[in-house]
Amino acid sequence: MASRMSDIRIWTAALVVIGDEILSGRTQDANIAQLAKWLNLQGIRLVEVRVVADDMAAIAEAVNTLRVRHDYLFTTGGIGPTHDDITVDAIAAALGVGVIVHPKARAVLEDYYVTRGGINEARLRMARVPDGAELIENVISGAPGIRKDNIFILAGIPRVAALMLESLSGTLEGGRPLISRTIGCWVPESEVADILRETEAAHHGCQIGSYPFFREGRGGANFVIRSTDAAVLDACIADLAERLSGGGWEPVIDGI
Amino acid sequence: MASRMSDIRIWTAALVVIGDEILSGRTQDANIAQLAKWLNLQGIRLVEVRVVADDMAAIAEAVNTLRVRHDYLFTTGGIGPTHDDITVDAIAAALGVGVIVHPKARAVLEDYYVTRGGINEARLRMARVPDGAELIENVISGAPGIRKDNIFILAGIPRVAALMLESLSGTLEGGRPLISRTIGCWVPESEVADILRETEAAHHGCQIGSYPFFREGRGGANFVIRSTDAAVLDACIADLAERLSGGGWEPVIDGI
Repeated sequence: MASRMSDIRIWTAALVVIGDEILSGRTQDANIAQLAKWLNLQGIRLVEVRVVADDMAAIAEAVNTLRVRHDYLFTTGGIGPTHDDITVDAIAAALGVGVIVHPKARAVLEDYYVTRGGINEARLRMARVPDGAELIENVISGAPGIRKDNIFILAGIPRVAALMLESLSGTLEGGRPLISRTIGCWVPESEVADILRETEAAHHGCQIGSYPFFREGRGGANFVIRSTDAAVLDACIADLAERLSGGGWEPVIDGI
Repeated sequence: MASRMSDIRIWTAALVVIGDEILSGRTQDANIAQLAKWLNLQGIRLVEVRVVADDMAAIAEAVNTLRVRHDYLFTTGGIGPTHDDITVDAIAAALGVGVIVHPKARAVLEDYYVTRGGINEARLRMARVPDGAELIENVISGAPGIRKDNIFILAGIPRVAALMLESLSGTLEGGRPLISRTIGCWVPESEVADILRETEAAHHGCQIGSYPFFREGRGGANFVIRSTDAAVLDACIADLAERLSGGGWEPVIDGI
Protein backbone atom coordinates (compact mmCIF):
# COMPACT_ATOMS: atom_id res chain seq x y z
CA MET A 1 0.00 0.00 0.00
CA ALA A 2 3.00 2.26 -0.46
CA SER A 3 1.31 5.19 -2.16
CA ARG A 4 1.82 8.80 -3.13
CA MET A 5 -0.09 11.72 -1.72
CA SER A 6 0.77 15.26 -2.74
CA ASP A 7 3.86 13.80 -4.45
CA ILE A 8 5.17 12.57 -1.12
CA ARG A 9 6.11 8.93 -0.88
CA ILE A 10 4.27 7.40 2.10
CA TRP A 11 6.07 4.53 3.79
CA THR A 12 3.69 2.04 5.34
CA ALA A 13 3.88 -0.74 7.88
CA ALA A 14 1.61 -3.42 9.30
CA LEU A 15 1.71 -5.29 12.60
CA VAL A 16 0.70 -8.86 13.42
CA VAL A 17 0.11 -9.33 17.15
CA ILE A 18 0.48 -13.03 17.92
CA GLY A 19 -1.00 -14.53 21.04
CA ASP A 20 -3.93 -16.35 22.59
CA GLU A 21 -3.51 -14.17 25.69
CA ILE A 22 -4.62 -11.08 23.76
CA LEU A 23 -7.59 -12.85 22.17
CA SER A 24 -8.73 -14.33 25.49
CA GLY A 25 -8.72 -10.90 27.12
CA ARG A 26 -6.16 -12.00 29.71
CA THR A 27 -3.62 -9.46 28.50
CA GLN A 28 -4.35 -5.93 27.34
CA ASP A 29 -2.24 -5.28 24.25
CA ALA A 30 0.21 -2.40 24.56
CA ASN A 31 2.33 -3.08 21.48
CA ILE A 32 -0.01 -1.50 18.92
CA ALA A 33 0.21 1.98 20.42
CA GLN A 34 3.91 1.60 21.23
CA LEU A 35 4.82 0.55 17.69
CA ALA A 36 2.56 3.21 16.15
CA LYS A 37 4.32 6.00 18.04
CA TRP A 38 7.77 4.65 17.22
CA LEU A 39 6.88 4.32 13.53
CA ASN A 40 5.63 7.93 13.44
CA LEU A 41 9.09 9.05 14.55
CA GLN A 42 10.66 7.00 11.75
CA GLY A 43 8.39 8.60 9.14
CA ILE A 44 6.52 5.33 8.62
CA ARG A 45 2.77 4.96 8.94
CA LEU A 46 1.09 2.03 10.67
CA VAL A 47 -1.75 1.20 8.30
CA GLU A 48 -3.19 -2.06 9.57
CA VAL A 49 -2.93 -4.50 12.45
CA ARG A 50 -4.07 -8.07 12.83
CA VAL A 51 -4.28 -10.03 16.06
CA VAL A 52 -4.05 -13.79 15.51
CA ALA A 53 -3.95 -16.88 17.70
CA ASP A 54 -0.93 -19.08 18.39
CA ASP A 55 -1.76 -20.99 15.23
CA MET A 56 0.61 -21.76 12.34
CA ALA A 57 -1.95 -21.21 9.56
CA ALA A 58 -3.36 -18.00 11.04
CA ILE A 59 0.11 -16.49 11.48
CA ALA A 60 1.18 -17.51 7.97
CA GLU A 61 -1.93 -16.06 6.36
CA ALA A 62 -1.52 -12.70 8.06
CA VAL A 63 2.22 -12.51 7.38
CA ASN A 64 1.98 -13.45 3.73
CA THR A 65 -0.85 -11.01 3.07
CA LEU A 66 0.73 -8.05 4.82
CA ARG A 67 4.42 -8.41 3.95
CA VAL A 68 3.76 -7.80 0.26
CA ARG A 69 1.31 -5.00 0.88
CA HIS A 70 3.55 -2.80 3.01
CA ASP A 71 7.13 -1.59 3.18
CA TYR A 72 7.59 -3.15 6.59
CA LEU A 73 5.89 -5.85 8.59
CA PHE A 74 6.30 -6.24 12.34
CA THR A 75 5.20 -9.09 14.56
CA THR A 76 5.04 -9.22 18.36
CA GLY A 77 4.81 -12.32 20.54
CA GLY A 78 5.53 -16.00 20.39
CA ILE A 79 9.35 -16.00 20.36
CA GLY A 80 9.97 -17.43 23.82
CA PRO A 81 11.22 -20.90 24.79
CA THR A 82 7.96 -22.80 25.31
CA HIS A 83 5.76 -25.01 23.12
CA ASP A 84 3.26 -22.18 22.47
CA ASP A 85 6.01 -20.01 20.94
CA ILE A 86 5.63 -20.85 17.25
CA THR A 87 6.21 -17.52 15.53
CA VAL A 88 9.58 -18.42 13.97
CA ASP A 89 8.32 -21.72 12.61
CA ALA A 90 5.13 -20.14 11.28
CA ILE A 91 6.97 -17.32 9.51
CA ALA A 92 9.59 -19.64 8.04
CA ALA A 93 6.80 -21.86 6.75
CA ALA A 94 4.98 -18.83 5.34
CA LEU A 95 8.14 -17.81 3.48
CA GLY A 96 8.97 -21.35 2.37
CA VAL A 97 12.38 -21.34 4.04
CA GLY A 98 13.89 -23.59 6.67
CA VAL A 99 14.61 -22.81 10.31
CA ILE A 100 18.25 -22.74 11.42
CA VAL A 101 20.03 -22.08 14.71
CA HIS A 102 21.69 -18.69 14.28
CA PRO A 103 25.33 -18.99 15.46
CA LYS A 104 25.47 -15.52 16.98
CA ALA A 105 22.12 -15.94 18.74
CA ARG A 106 23.36 -19.24 20.13
CA ALA A 107 26.53 -17.58 21.41
CA VAL A 108 24.55 -14.73 22.98
CA LEU A 109 22.20 -17.15 24.73
CA GLU A 110 25.00 -19.45 25.92
CA ASP A 111 26.74 -16.42 27.37
CA TYR A 112 23.55 -15.05 28.93
CA TYR A 113 22.70 -18.33 30.65
CA VAL A 114 26.21 -19.03 32.02
CA THR A 115 25.16 -17.46 35.33
CA ARG A 116 21.52 -18.48 35.01
CA GLY A 117 21.52 -22.27 35.10
CA GLY A 118 23.13 -22.95 31.73
CA ILE A 119 21.79 -23.40 28.24
CA ASN A 120 19.23 -26.13 27.56
CA GLU A 121 17.09 -27.28 24.66
CA ALA A 122 14.19 -24.94 25.43
CA ARG A 123 16.50 -21.93 25.69
CA LEU A 124 18.19 -22.88 22.44
CA ARG A 125 14.79 -22.60 20.76
CA MET A 126 15.26 -18.84 21.09
CA ALA A 127 18.31 -19.02 18.79
CA ARG A 128 16.20 -20.45 15.95
CA VAL A 129 15.52 -18.11 13.03
CA PRO A 130 14.16 -18.37 9.50
CA ASP A 131 17.09 -19.18 7.19
CA GLY A 132 18.79 -15.97 6.03
CA ALA A 133 17.61 -13.81 8.94
CA GLU A 134 19.60 -11.25 10.92
CA LEU A 135 19.33 -10.54 14.64
CA ILE A 136 17.82 -7.53 16.40
CA GLU A 137 19.63 -6.81 19.64
CA ASN A 138 17.89 -7.33 22.98
CA VAL A 139 19.97 -6.04 25.87
CA ILE A 140 17.52 -7.20 28.54
CA SER A 141 16.97 -10.92 28.35
CA GLY A 142 19.42 -12.37 25.88
CA ALA A 143 16.92 -13.70 23.34
CA PRO A 144 17.20 -11.49 20.26
CA GLY A 145 14.57 -10.20 17.87
CA ILE A 146 14.80 -11.27 14.24
CA ARG A 147 14.81 -9.47 10.92
CA LYS A 148 14.08 -11.44 7.75
CA ASP A 149 13.75 -9.30 4.61
CA ASN A 150 11.10 -6.67 5.46
CA ILE A 151 9.75 -8.64 8.44
CA PHE A 152 10.70 -7.65 12.00
CA ILE A 153 9.97 -10.27 14.64
CA LEU A 154 9.76 -8.72 18.10
CA ALA A 155 9.07 -9.94 21.63
CA GLY A 156 5.55 -9.82 23.04
CA ILE A 157 6.53 -8.26 26.37
CA PRO A 158 6.19 -4.54 25.66
CA ARG A 159 9.33 -3.37 27.46
CA VAL A 160 11.41 -5.97 25.62
CA ALA A 161 9.80 -5.01 22.31
CA ALA A 162 10.60 -1.37 23.15
CA LEU A 163 14.29 -2.15 23.50
CA MET A 164 14.31 -3.99 20.19
CA LEU A 165 12.66 -0.97 18.54
CA GLU A 166 15.23 1.27 20.21
CA SER A 167 18.02 -0.69 18.56
CA LEU A 168 16.25 -0.32 15.19
CA SER A 169 15.75 3.45 15.55
CA GLY A 170 17.08 5.37 12.60
CA THR A 171 17.88 2.26 10.56
CA LEU A 172 14.68 2.03 8.49
CA GLU A 173 14.08 4.24 5.51
CA GLY A 174 10.99 6.37 5.95
CA GLY A 175 9.40 9.53 4.68
CA ARG A 176 8.33 12.69 6.38
CA PRO A 177 6.97 11.98 9.83
CA LEU A 178 3.23 12.42 10.20
CA ILE A 179 2.82 15.35 12.55
CA SER A 180 -0.30 16.26 14.45
CA ARG A 181 -1.76 19.09 16.46
CA THR A 182 -4.91 19.27 18.49
CA ILE A 183 -7.64 21.84 19.06
CA GLY A 184 -10.07 21.19 21.89
CA CYS A 185 -13.49 22.72 22.37
CA TRP A 186 -16.25 22.42 24.96
CA VAL A 187 -18.72 21.62 22.23
CA PRO A 188 -20.61 18.48 21.25
CA GLU A 189 -18.88 17.35 18.04
CA SER A 190 -22.30 17.04 16.41
CA GLU A 191 -22.69 20.85 16.53
CA VAL A 192 -19.51 21.51 14.57
CA ALA A 193 -19.53 18.58 12.15
CA ASP A 194 -19.99 20.93 9.18
CA ILE A 195 -17.07 23.11 10.24
CA LEU A 196 -14.81 20.08 10.57
CA ARG A 197 -15.76 18.66 7.18
CA GLU A 198 -15.40 21.99 5.40
CA THR A 199 -12.05 22.79 7.04
CA GLU A 200 -10.62 19.40 6.11
CA ALA A 201 -11.80 19.84 2.52
CA ALA A 202 -10.14 23.26 2.32
CA HIS A 203 -6.69 21.98 3.33
CA HIS A 204 -5.39 19.32 1.01
CA GLY A 205 -3.06 16.88 2.75
CA CYS A 206 -4.67 17.23 6.19
CA GLN A 207 -6.93 14.79 8.00
CA ILE A 208 -9.07 15.94 10.89
CA GLY A 209 -10.17 13.39 13.47
CA SER A 210 -12.82 14.19 16.05
CA TYR A 211 -12.57 12.63 19.52
CA PRO A 212 -15.45 13.42 21.86
CA PHE A 213 -15.20 13.16 25.65
CA PHE A 214 -17.28 13.70 28.76
CA ARG A 215 -15.37 15.37 31.58
CA GLU A 216 -16.18 17.48 34.63
CA GLY A 217 -19.84 16.85 33.98
CA ARG A 218 -19.92 18.20 30.45
CA GLY A 219 -19.10 17.17 26.93
CA GLY A 220 -16.46 18.37 24.54
CA ALA A 221 -14.20 17.12 21.82
CA ASN A 222 -10.60 17.24 20.70
CA PHE A 223 -9.98 17.69 17.00
CA VAL A 224 -6.68 16.19 15.86
CA ILE A 225 -5.23 17.50 12.60
CA ARG A 226 -2.60 15.30 10.95
CA SER A 227 -0.31 16.09 8.03
CA THR A 228 3.21 15.41 6.81
CA ASP A 229 3.63 19.12 6.00
CA ALA A 230 4.10 21.53 8.93
CA ALA A 231 3.03 24.62 6.96
CA VAL A 232 -0.15 22.95 5.73
CA LEU A 233 -0.85 21.79 9.27
CA ASP A 234 -0.37 25.27 10.74
CA ALA A 235 -2.67 26.82 8.15
CA CYS A 236 -5.34 24.21 8.85
CA ILE A 237 -5.09 24.73 12.62
CA ALA A 238 -5.41 28.52 12.24
CA ASP A 239 -8.40 28.14 9.91
CA LEU A 240 -10.18 25.68 12.20
CA ALA A 241 -9.62 27.92 15.22
CA GLU A 242 -11.04 30.89 13.34
CA ARG A 243 -14.09 28.97 12.15
CA LEU A 244 -14.80 27.68 15.66
CA SER A 245 -14.46 31.19 17.11
CA GLY A 246 -16.70 32.52 14.36
CA GLY A 247 -19.33 29.98 15.38
CA GLY A 248 -19.26 31.28 18.94
CA TRP A 249 -17.09 28.50 20.36
CA GLU A 250 -13.80 28.89 22.21
CA PRO A 251 -11.09 26.77 20.64
CA VAL A 252 -8.30 25.59 22.96
CA ILE A 253 -5.04 25.17 21.05
CA ASP A 254 -3.22 21.92 21.92
CA GLY A 255 -6.41 20.39 23.20
CA ILE A 256 -8.39 19.95 26.38
CA MET B 1 -14.00 -20.98 11.19
CA ALA B 2 -16.80 -22.51 13.23
CA SER B 3 -15.22 -25.88 13.96
CA ARG B 4 -15.57 -28.94 16.16
CA MET B 5 -13.14 -30.01 18.84
CA SER B 6 -13.88 -33.03 20.99
CA ASP B 7 -17.35 -33.05 19.41
CA ILE B 8 -18.07 -29.65 20.91
CA ARG B 9 -19.25 -26.95 18.55
CA ILE B 10 -16.99 -23.93 18.95
CA TRP B 11 -18.66 -20.59 18.27
CA THR B 12 -16.25 -18.02 16.93
CA ALA B 13 -16.17 -14.27 16.51
CA ALA B 14 -13.92 -11.64 14.98
CA LEU B 15 -13.51 -7.95 15.72
CA VAL B 16 -12.71 -5.06 13.38
CA VAL B 17 -11.40 -2.04 15.29
CA ILE B 18 -11.94 1.02 13.11
CA GLY B 19 -10.00 4.20 13.68
CA ASP B 20 -6.99 6.28 12.72
CA GLU B 21 -6.57 7.18 16.40
CA ILE B 22 -5.59 3.59 17.24
CA LEU B 23 -3.18 3.30 14.30
CA SER B 24 -1.53 6.63 15.09
CA GLY B 25 -0.89 5.56 18.68
CA ARG B 26 -2.95 8.45 20.04
CA THR B 27 -5.45 6.11 21.66
CA GLN B 28 -4.65 2.84 23.39
CA ASP B 29 -7.27 0.30 22.34
CA ALA B 30 -9.33 -1.14 25.17
CA ASN B 31 -12.08 -2.78 23.14
CA ILE B 32 -10.18 -5.94 22.20
CA ALA B 33 -9.76 -7.12 25.79
CA GLN B 34 -13.23 -5.91 26.77
CA LEU B 35 -14.95 -7.77 23.93
CA ALA B 36 -12.81 -10.88 24.47
CA LYS B 37 -13.89 -11.18 28.09
CA TRP B 38 -17.54 -10.56 27.28
CA LEU B 39 -17.47 -13.15 24.49
CA ASN B 40 -15.93 -15.73 26.86
CA LEU B 41 -18.96 -15.34 29.11
CA GLN B 42 -21.27 -15.91 26.13
CA GLY B 43 -19.43 -19.11 25.19
CA ILE B 44 -18.03 -17.51 22.04
CA ARG B 45 -14.34 -17.38 21.19
CA LEU B 46 -12.63 -14.30 19.79
CA VAL B 47 -10.41 -15.77 17.08
CA GLU B 48 -9.05 -12.80 15.16
CA VAL B 49 -8.95 -9.03 15.26
CA ARG B 50 -8.11 -6.47 12.61
CA VAL B 51 -7.42 -2.80 13.18
CA VAL B 52 -8.09 -0.69 10.09
CA ALA B 53 -8.04 3.00 9.21
CA ASP B 54 -11.05 5.27 8.63
CA ASP B 55 -11.05 4.10 5.02
CA MET B 56 -14.03 2.69 3.09
CA ALA B 57 -12.05 0.03 1.20
CA ALA B 58 -10.08 -1.13 4.24
CA ILE B 59 -13.23 -1.50 6.35
CA ALA B 60 -15.08 -3.32 3.58
CA GLU B 61 -12.25 -5.78 2.98
CA ALA B 62 -11.99 -6.69 6.65
CA VAL B 63 -15.76 -6.96 7.12
CA ASN B 64 -16.36 -9.09 4.04
CA THR B 65 -13.51 -11.46 4.86
CA LEU B 66 -14.41 -11.98 8.48
CA ARG B 67 -18.22 -12.03 8.42
CA VAL B 68 -18.28 -15.24 6.38
CA ARG B 69 -15.49 -16.89 8.36
CA HIS B 70 -17.04 -16.54 11.81
CA ASP B 71 -20.38 -16.90 13.54
CA TYR B 72 -20.29 -13.28 14.67
CA LEU B 73 -18.45 -10.16 13.58
CA PHE B 74 -18.14 -7.09 15.79
CA THR B 75 -16.88 -3.65 14.87
CA THR B 76 -15.95 -0.76 17.16
CA GLY B 77 -15.55 2.88 16.20
CA GLY B 78 -16.64 5.29 13.50
CA ILE B 79 -20.36 5.62 14.28
CA GLY B 80 -20.40 9.21 15.54
CA PRO B 81 -21.75 12.35 13.85
CA THR B 82 -18.64 13.69 12.10
CA HIS B 83 -17.14 13.32 8.63
CA ASP B 84 -14.59 10.72 9.78
CA ASP B 85 -17.38 8.40 10.98
CA ILE B 86 -17.85 6.19 7.93
CA THR B 87 -18.44 2.76 9.42
CA VAL B 88 -22.13 2.52 8.46
CA ASP B 89 -21.48 3.59 4.87
CA ALA B 90 -18.50 1.25 4.54
CA ILE B 91 -20.39 -1.77 5.89
CA ALA B 92 -23.48 -1.07 3.77
CA ALA B 93 -21.21 -0.81 0.71
CA ALA B 94 -19.46 -4.04 1.68
CA LEU B 95 -22.82 -5.81 1.91
CA GLY B 96 -24.18 -4.20 -1.25
CA VAL B 97 -27.16 -2.65 0.52
CA GLY B 98 -28.29 0.94 0.85
CA VAL B 99 -28.20 3.18 3.89
CA ILE B 100 -31.50 4.30 5.41
CA VAL B 101 -32.51 6.46 8.36
CA HIS B 102 -33.88 4.04 10.94
CA PRO B 103 -37.21 5.47 12.21
CA LYS B 104 -36.71 4.30 15.79
CA ALA B 105 -33.13 5.58 15.92
CA ARG B 106 -34.36 8.91 14.61
CA ALA B 107 -37.03 9.06 17.30
CA VAL B 108 -34.52 8.14 20.03
CA LEU B 109 -32.09 10.84 18.85
CA GLU B 110 -34.80 13.49 18.50
CA ASP B 111 -35.92 12.74 22.02
CA TYR B 112 -32.35 12.68 23.40
CA TYR B 113 -31.48 16.05 21.88
CA VAL B 114 -34.69 17.85 22.95
CA THR B 115 -32.85 19.17 26.01
CA ARG B 116 -29.44 19.28 24.28
CA GLY B 117 -29.81 21.86 21.53
CA GLY B 118 -32.13 19.96 19.22
CA ILE B 119 -31.58 17.53 16.37
CA ASN B 120 -29.47 18.60 13.39
CA GLU B 121 -28.10 17.00 10.25
CA ALA B 122 -24.88 15.75 11.88
CA ARG B 123 -26.79 14.19 14.76
CA LEU B 124 -29.20 12.57 12.33
CA ARG B 125 -26.20 10.80 10.76
CA MET B 126 -26.25 8.61 13.85
CA ALA B 127 -29.70 7.30 12.87
CA ARG B 128 -28.37 5.96 9.57
CA VAL B 129 -28.09 2.17 9.30
CA PRO B 130 -27.51 -0.41 6.57
CA ASP B 131 -30.92 -1.30 5.12
CA GLY B 132 -32.50 -4.13 7.10
CA ALA B 133 -30.58 -3.52 10.30
CA GLU B 134 -31.85 -3.56 13.90
CA LEU B 135 -30.76 -1.31 16.74
CA ILE B 136 -28.64 -2.14 19.78
CA GLU B 137 -29.68 -0.05 22.75
CA ASN B 138 -27.35 2.61 24.15
CA VAL B 139 -28.66 4.08 27.39
CA ILE B 140 -25.82 6.60 27.71
CA SER B 141 -25.69 8.87 24.71
CA GLY B 142 -28.71 8.24 22.57
CA ALA B 143 -26.92 7.01 19.46
CA PRO B 144 -27.63 3.29 19.17
CA GLY B 145 -25.43 0.42 18.06
CA ILE B 146 -26.51 -1.53 15.01
CA ARG B 147 -27.03 -5.20 14.21
CA LYS B 148 -27.15 -6.31 10.58
CA ASP B 149 -27.27 -10.09 10.10
CA ASN B 150 -24.27 -11.45 12.07
CA ILE B 151 -22.53 -8.05 12.21
CA PHE B 152 -22.63 -5.99 15.42
CA ILE B 153 -21.61 -2.36 15.00
CA LEU B 154 -20.56 -0.83 18.33
CA ALA B 155 -19.27 2.52 19.53
CA GLY B 156 -15.54 3.14 19.81
CA ILE B 157 -15.65 4.68 23.28
CA PRO B 158 -15.12 1.63 25.52
CA ARG B 159 -17.71 2.50 28.17
CA VAL B 160 -20.36 3.05 25.50
CA ALA B 161 -19.37 -0.20 23.77
CA ALA B 162 -19.64 -1.91 27.17
CA LEU B 163 -23.25 -0.78 27.57
CA MET B 164 -24.11 -2.02 24.10
CA LEU B 165 -22.57 -5.40 24.96
CA GLU B 166 -24.52 -5.41 28.21
CA SER B 167 -27.76 -5.05 26.27
CA LEU B 168 -26.69 -7.97 24.02
CA SER B 169 -25.78 -10.26 26.94
CA GLY B 170 -27.50 -13.60 26.76
CA THR B 171 -28.99 -12.97 23.32
CA LEU B 172 -26.30 -14.65 21.17
CA GLU B 173 -26.13 -18.39 20.79
CA GLY B 174 -22.82 -19.75 22.03
CA GLY B 175 -21.24 -22.94 23.24
CA ARG B 176 -19.58 -23.88 26.46
CA PRO B 177 -17.58 -20.95 27.85
CA LEU B 178 -13.84 -21.33 27.66
CA ILE B 179 -12.68 -21.56 31.23
CA SER B 180 -9.16 -21.04 32.48
CA ARG B 181 -7.08 -21.56 35.58
CA THR B 182 -3.57 -20.47 36.35
CA ILE B 183 -0.56 -22.00 38.07
CA GLY B 184 2.31 -19.69 38.89
CA CYS B 185 5.89 -20.65 39.64
CA TRP B 186 9.09 -18.79 40.47
CA VAL B 187 10.89 -20.53 37.64
CA PRO B 188 12.21 -19.36 34.28
CA GLU B 189 9.77 -20.84 31.75
CA SER B 190 12.73 -22.18 29.79
CA GLU B 191 13.48 -24.64 32.62
CA VAL B 192 10.03 -26.22 32.51
CA ALA B 193 9.30 -26.09 28.78
CA ASP B 194 9.35 -29.90 28.53
CA ILE B 195 6.93 -30.29 31.45
CA LEU B 196 4.51 -27.81 29.86
CA ARG B 197 4.61 -29.47 26.45
CA GLU B 198 4.20 -32.98 27.88
CA THR B 199 1.36 -31.96 30.19
CA GLU B 200 -0.54 -30.29 27.39
CA ALA B 201 -0.09 -33.34 25.17
CA ALA B 202 -1.42 -35.62 27.94
CA HIS B 203 -4.68 -33.69 28.35
CA HIS B 204 -6.70 -33.55 25.16
CA GLY B 205 -8.83 -30.41 24.92
CA CYS B 206 -6.53 -28.23 27.05
CA GLN B 207 -4.18 -25.50 25.92
CA ILE B 208 -1.40 -24.30 28.20
CA GLY B 209 -0.04 -20.79 27.72
CA SER B 210 3.16 -19.66 29.41
CA TYR B 211 3.49 -16.02 30.50
CA PRO B 212 6.84 -15.06 31.99
CA PHE B 213 7.35 -12.06 34.25
CA PHE B 214 10.06 -10.29 36.22
CA ARG B 215 8.91 -9.10 39.63
CA GLU B 216 10.49 -8.30 42.98
CA GLY B 217 13.88 -8.69 41.35
CA ARG B 218 13.38 -12.25 40.10
CA GLY B 219 11.79 -14.11 37.26
CA GLY B 220 8.82 -16.43 37.16
CA ALA B 221 5.95 -17.44 34.97
CA ASN B 222 2.23 -18.01 35.08
CA PHE B 223 0.91 -21.01 33.19
CA VAL B 224 -2.68 -20.55 32.03
CA ILE B 225 -4.63 -23.70 31.21
CA ARG B 226 -7.74 -23.23 29.07
CA SER B 227 -10.49 -25.71 28.26
CA THR B 228 -14.22 -25.83 27.71
CA ASP B 229 -14.46 -28.85 30.05
CA ALA B 230 -14.09 -28.21 33.79
CA ALA B 231 -13.18 -31.82 34.61
CA VAL B 232 -10.48 -31.94 31.95
CA LEU B 233 -9.18 -28.60 33.19
CA ASP B 234 -9.02 -29.77 36.81
CA ALA B 235 -7.18 -32.95 35.85
CA CYS B 236 -4.67 -30.94 33.81
CA ILE B 237 -4.09 -28.45 36.64
CA ALA B 238 -3.52 -31.27 39.14
CA ASP B 239 -1.13 -33.03 36.78
CA LEU B 240 0.86 -29.88 36.04
CA ALA B 241 1.15 -29.04 39.74
CA GLU B 242 2.41 -32.54 40.46
CA ARG B 243 4.96 -32.44 37.65
CA LEU B 244 6.26 -29.06 38.78
CA SER B 245 6.53 -30.26 42.38
CA GLY B 246 8.29 -33.41 41.17
CA GLY B 247 10.84 -31.20 39.40
CA GLY B 248 11.60 -29.41 42.64
CA TRP B 249 9.52 -26.32 41.93
CA GLU B 250 6.75 -24.89 44.06
CA PRO B 251 3.57 -24.41 42.03
CA VAL B 252 1.23 -21.65 43.19
CA ILE B 253 -2.37 -22.48 42.36
CA ASP B 254 -4.26 -19.51 40.85
CA GLY B 255 -1.04 -17.83 39.87
CA ILE B 256 1.50 -15.38 41.13
